Amino acid sequence: ARTVKEWRSDRPHLVVAMAGLPARGKTYIARRIARYLSWMGVQNRWYNVGNHRRQVLGAGQPNEWFDPSNEEATRIRSNLALQVLDMMIDEMTNKGVEVGVFDATNTTLERRAELIRRCHEANIELLFVELICYDPEIIAHNIRETKLTSPDYFGKPADEIVHDFLLRIAHYERAYQTLTEDIPYIKYVDVGRQVVLNRIKGYLPSHICFYITHLHTTPRPLYLSRHGESEFNTREIIGGDSDLSENGRMYAQRLGKFMQLKAHRDLVCFTSTLRRTRETARLAALSSVQWAALDELNAGTCDSMTYEDIRVAYPGEYAARQQDKLRYRYPRGESYEDVIERLETVILELERSQSPVLVIGHQAVNRALLAYFRSLAVDECPILEVPLHCVIELVPKAYGCEERHYYLDRDDVENIESKLVNVVKMQGEMPITGSVNISNEL
Amino acid sequence: ARTVKEWRSDRPHLVVAMAGLPARGKTYIARRIARYLSWMGVQNRWYNVGNHRRQVLGAGQPNEWFDPSNEEATRIRSNLALQVLDMMIDEMTNKGVEVGVFDATNTTLERRAELIRRCHEANIELLFVELICYDPEIIAHNIRETKLTSPDYFGKPADEIVHDFLLRIAHYERAYQTLTEDIPYIKYVDVGRQVVLNRIKGYLPSHICFYITHLHTTPRPLYLSRHGESEFNTREIIGGDSDLSENGRMYAQRLGKFMQLKAHRDLVCFTSTLRRTRETARLAALSSVQWAALDELNAGTCDSMTYEDIRVAYPGEYAARQQDKLRYRYPRGESYEDVIERLETVILELERSQSPVLVIGHQAVNRALLAYFRSLAVDECPILEVPLHCVIELVPKAYGCEERHYYLDRDDVENIESKLVNVVKMQGEMPITGSVNISNEL
Ligand SMILES: Nc1ncnc2c1ncn2[C@@H]1O[C@H](COP(=O)(O)OP(=O)(O)OP(=O)(O)O)[C@@H](O)[C@H]1O
Ligand SMILES: Nc1ncnc2c1ncn2[C@@H]1O[C@H](COP(=O)(O)OP(=O)(O)OP(=O)(O)O)[C@@H](O)[C@H]1O
Ligand SMILES: [Mg+2]
Ligand SMILES: [Mg+2]
Repeated sequence: ARTVKEWRSDRPHLVVAMAGLPARGKTYIARRIARYLSWMGVQNRWYNVGNHRRQVLGAGQPNEWFDPSNEEATRIRSNLALQVLDMMIDEMTNKGVEVGVFDATNTTLERRAELIRRCHEANIELLFVELICYDPEIIAHNIRETKLTSPDYFGKPADEIVHDFLLRIAHYERAYQTLTEDIPYIKYVDVGRQVVLNRIKGYLPSHICFYITHLHTTPRPLYLSRHGESEFNTREIIGGDSDLSENGRMYAQRLGKFMQLKAHRDLVCFTSTLRRTRETARLAALSSVQWAALDELNAGTCDSMTYEDIRVAYPGEYAARQQDKLRYRYPRGESYEDVIERLETVILELERSQSPVLVIGHQAVNRALLAYFRSLAVDECPILEVPLHCVIELVPKAYGCEERHYYLDRDDVENIESKLVNVVKMQGEMPITGSVNISNEL
Repeated sequence: ARTVKEWRSDRPHLVVAMAGLPARGKTYIARRIARYLSWMGVQNRWYNVGNHRRQVLGAGQPNEWFDPSNEEATRIRSNLALQVLDMMIDEMTNKGVEVGVFDATNTTLERRAELIRRCHEANIELLFVELICYDPEIIAHNIRETKLTSPDYFGKPADEIVHDFLLRIAHYERAYQTLTEDIPYIKYVDVGRQVVLNRIKGYLPSHICFYITHLHTTPRPLYLSRHGESEFNTREIIGGDSDLSENGRMYAQRLGKFMQLKAHRDLVCFTSTLRRTRETARLAALSSVQWAALDELNAGTCDSMTYEDIRVAYPGEYAARQQDKLRYRYPRGESYEDVIERLETVILELERSQSPVLVIGHQAVNRALLAYFRSLAVDECPILEVPLHCVIELVPKAYGCEERHYYLDRDDVENIESKLVNVVKMQGEMPITGSVNISNEL
């Protein structure tokens, strides 16, 4: 008997190939897809042709170098792209990468035909994701948000960069052929205003499409907090459905005050169905929505025991969990993998929301959510630090999230204001990982 | 604190309006959407303009009556459509219908403009679902599958019907304007080969889109069975994770033999993660995939008790469950509603599958699945009969499922062959219901 995950990965491997002019959000979407797949436990890697060019040739090619009538440069660019392609196919064939995200412009029929040919030869399925956008304001914004810091323009003034990048785009535009091939593709037009799905089938392609349709670029923070300390927490008992301790009730009030200082007019608050999270929201004076999907990892027959109890009563179970905390499933209960599976619906709601959201969850559940926002591979999730009485603020940036931690544990309500100038931990350039050895850049 | 369901239904009500030429599958898709919504517990109703015409005028209008140059008939047809529209808006405004599925051709800009205007006035959101198909073979197949039995053609020979219906389509084609308005719509082209999503946002519209992309029209049966009788079944204990009884093991073998006689070459078998379903698959000699989403309703603190134990130990809980079996959630456990929520992913896989699937599940889980295939409102699910040692075969037909029950309980393996000529219970024209008073036809 196979697990659902094993069953799904029986299918041929998949290349998700981006397509589109520069500054259309290809890298943004490619990394989002990679993040989503990593979180679902799909071995994937992101392959960026621009980074490969800079690695091989050094950064700083002027816009003329991207002129399609510059034959020498065009030949070099094509070679670089095909090198990355071959490396990707090799890693997918021999090194366990199940999904390769091929982040390049792929704007000509000829280039795509070569891509199709090589994937077909290697028995790899192919899904194109084309990003189309002609709104000059969005493009200008994208250039400013992501190209000003590009190594291609190190030390140059902003106006000069924007000017040169617009010329680079114009060169690409001359050779650009939008997707007309009758192959599996998604066209994602004007940041999701229109989406065209062509010949999409299979679990991963259709989930990738569904995921993409939830994304938007309106900035808004997300907050993760565990419930306030519970009666069971004070006795180191796991699970259960106990009330808050005195200490926990005080945290709930501080949390309320903290959110008040943040002064979001349209804050949405999600809790689990368990008393300790609902009580936390209530004492924080937040109206909330209860999700069964946010309930704590179900410890089954070990619910309401301490870890020490478990070690003594079920030493075999205890040891099995130490061995593989991600996949270990409590008798009659859940594994981290099970929790992640049921959290997918919450992640999609968080992505979709245009309003700020505060999630009042639990240790395992918040670990799983945090792993997603940090773009971590799923195996790292069970060991993340998610302390009680700490609010984690996540602000989405171009390629990741900015992360701030507010410890509201040792202060009374009056001191919270000072917390707002807290240490910022930037997660903007977190590597996109899988269990194969993967670094941020190709 | 609201439940997720309450939170979602805070949003404005939604009209899903079909659009497209005759015999394009509008009614098929409309009823699928209604089925899906009913199962998710969304109060919805399907409004079919053709049925209203037949009710008002009687059936049997010849194709000429649909000629757009026939001004008198065009006026009548328009009035009929707007009558249904107003009735729908009235029921959505005053009678608790959250989603109205408006099943009409809506093929002209003018008609759609009126629809948009009236929904806007009533503060109702609108999503168009346009079905486009120009494959003459598919159209001919659709006519034969659904129009030969239409009351419009009662007693007519098949060839004449097909001929007249093709002329009816031709009339509509002359006036047809495909959707070009920049409003929320899905265009569903050639049975899903291409799907265009325009301005889709919000939970229901994007879930409807995702759902539709999973549908196909390749016929294949689905089978539902509970695990063989378990040790706990013999003692009337609920939940747990016990092994099969001797009786249960014998059922598993009969199930294997039964599936062998069915001789599907590409059968897929889904089980839960619990021993009794996995063991059933193993003894049936079926290789299987384990879904945590198929695990039995979790009875939380009442797990491993008999109903009598529960009544005595927790009379309050016992009574609460009797009162509202759908929404009742066991302490630390689940409600039927929770189970339905987690089964959505399985339903989508069953819809997507082009191969026959056998689900070896549990009582509550199989009830929830059966409620979907019978197009029942979700409140009927907790009382459906799903006996042990019975295989339910579901064969999708144009507007519903044909359902056969095979009782493999009292026979030994040799007698199973005779079971294959079993009673057929046709569920093809099951009403699409909600908690408002809803009948099959408008
Ligand atoms: N669907 C989209 N359409 C347009 N812009 C988007 C979209 N999604 C994200 N963005 C924005 O795109 C910017 C990131 O641009 P990105 O670097 O990904 O472009 P790119 O297409 O990879 O460019 P290049 O070809 O130079 O690598 C971000 O500011 C992000 O907000
Ligand atoms: N997306 C689709 N495209 C074409 N045919 C489809 C599609 N989905 C289902 N079908 C087929 O359509 C047939 C049902 O036709 P249906 O009665 O729904 O058409 P209709 O558009 O409602 O016609 P009418 O305008 O006469 O009411 C079924 O045989 C079904 O297999
Ligand atoms: Mg890029
Ligand atoms: Mg119809």
